[in-house]
Amino acid sequence: MAKQDRAVRTRQELICSAAEVFDRRGFMSASLADISTGAGVSTGALNFHFSSKKELGETVQAAAEESLRYITTACTESRPAPLQTLIDATHVLATQFEENVVLRAGLGLDNDAAWDGGAELWLKWRGWVRGMLTIAEYEGNLAPGVLPDDACATIMAIVMGLETLGRKDHALCSRRVVTRFWKMMLPGLASEETRAKLEAGGSESVARWDEHMRNADGVVGRLTVKGCTGCTGCAEEP
Amino acid sequence: MAKQDRAVRTRQELICSAAEVFDRRGFMSASLADISTGAGVSTGALNFHFSSKKELGETVQAAAEESLRYITTACTESRPAPLQTLIDATHVLATQFEENVVLRAGLGLDNDAAWDGGAELWLKWRGWVRGMLTIAEYEGNLAPGVLPDDACATIMAIVMGLETLGRKDHALCSRRVVTRFWKMMLPGLASEETRAKLEAGGSESVARWDEHMRNADGVVGRLTVKGCTGCTGCAEEP
Repeated sequence: MAKQDRAVRTRQELICSAAEVFDRRGFMSASLADISTGAGVSTGALNFHFSSKKELGETVQAAAEESLRYITTACTESRPAPLQTLIDATHVLATQFEENVVLRAGLGLDNDAAWDGGAELWLKWRGWVRGMLTIAEYEGNLAPGVLPDDACATIMAIVMGLETLGRKDHALCSRRVVTRFWKMMLPGLASEETRAKLEAGGSESVARWDEHMRNADGVVGRLTVKGCTGCTGCAEEP
Repeated sequence: MAKQDRAVRTRQELICSAAEVFDRRGFMSASLADISTGAGVSTGALNFHFSSKKELGETVQAAAEESLRYITTACTESRPAPLQTLIDATHVLATQFEENVVLRAGLGLDNDAAWDGGAELWLKWRGWVRGMLTIAEYEGNLAPGVLPDDACATIMAIVMGLETLGRKDHALCSRRVVTRFWKMMLPGLASEETRAKLEAGGSESVARWDEHMRNADGVVGRLTVKGCTGCTGCAEEP
């Protein structure tokens, strides 16, 4: 492997390892020694790539943001109805919360009292959800009287709650839970005509995503490390 | 004030101060010096009451658990329909998340990667929600096909999400958001007959709770400190 490739790979393994340690222990308790050990390199090598724990945190959040963008792009690719896009994205997120430690750690930092890096990933995700609901409203897909802001607050809360619950018990953040949530929610959220076309269990896009992830062994935004130990969210660029 | 009363009061001020520091900085970053300063006592006085930061955390969680029990008891007092009880409890929780730092800190410790005290308040709250849904099912109040476990997962996720969102922005965890959530949720959750009797904005119980809190200046389970600075969740025993 060329020297440059090795450096890129080491950097990416450090990001994965940092995500794992942040996710498991929180930002404050995470030690640089644990992070370098997890990546199989010396503390010196870590210092060569990152000047501080905060810089590692910011890099993890940047990768998580890339991941979020990747998910929302994949779910809008085939231009389904906006509410279907939202349903699909929550399904993909539920699996990614479980599988993608970089996404989990990036979002987790936002909720970590000891973190002041402030990427505000949740706010960005909120902007996207709100945008989809605006389109849904414009296209007459919402039930009478439903305001996009209110629907947005509920969807945000449920996704954030799923993420937090998933940390305690993966079964609480499963695709099945997401499906049941939408089944319960759609009669009050979507207009009758729209509802008939929506699949609470996720559309083709989700199936395509699952297929893609099975083949790619996971892709996390720009993170493309193969064989990153313990992190199922990274894979070599296809 | 008698010596014994002063000791009780100091202990309770320490619990409030610990809750504030845990809530603001997370368990790991919380320092005993900050906690004793917040309570207006010396570190020596803190050590007299609590042998460790962990013991303080456990005491905060015990007080939060008492708070949760107080809320669920208040909401079942007039024996409303089980779904109305659930609606009411989420409304009370939404205001308490904002006002009651001991409750917030107690629940927050459960989600804190650095905390291993393990009171599992969320699990206890989950048990109560599940119980209410079992009664609702038994009484034929759920919409056809709705399983208590699925409804429970959704309600748990939404409440946990509201708590997390409320930490970022109180407006995201307001009574209005809770009302909109239930308005959207009830058509898919409750049977038609039951639905007609439910108030998404909360019943009499919530109004009574609000009234009670206005008069009592806040009560947190066994915590009954008057003039606890910065903590609006504590008050002298009525």
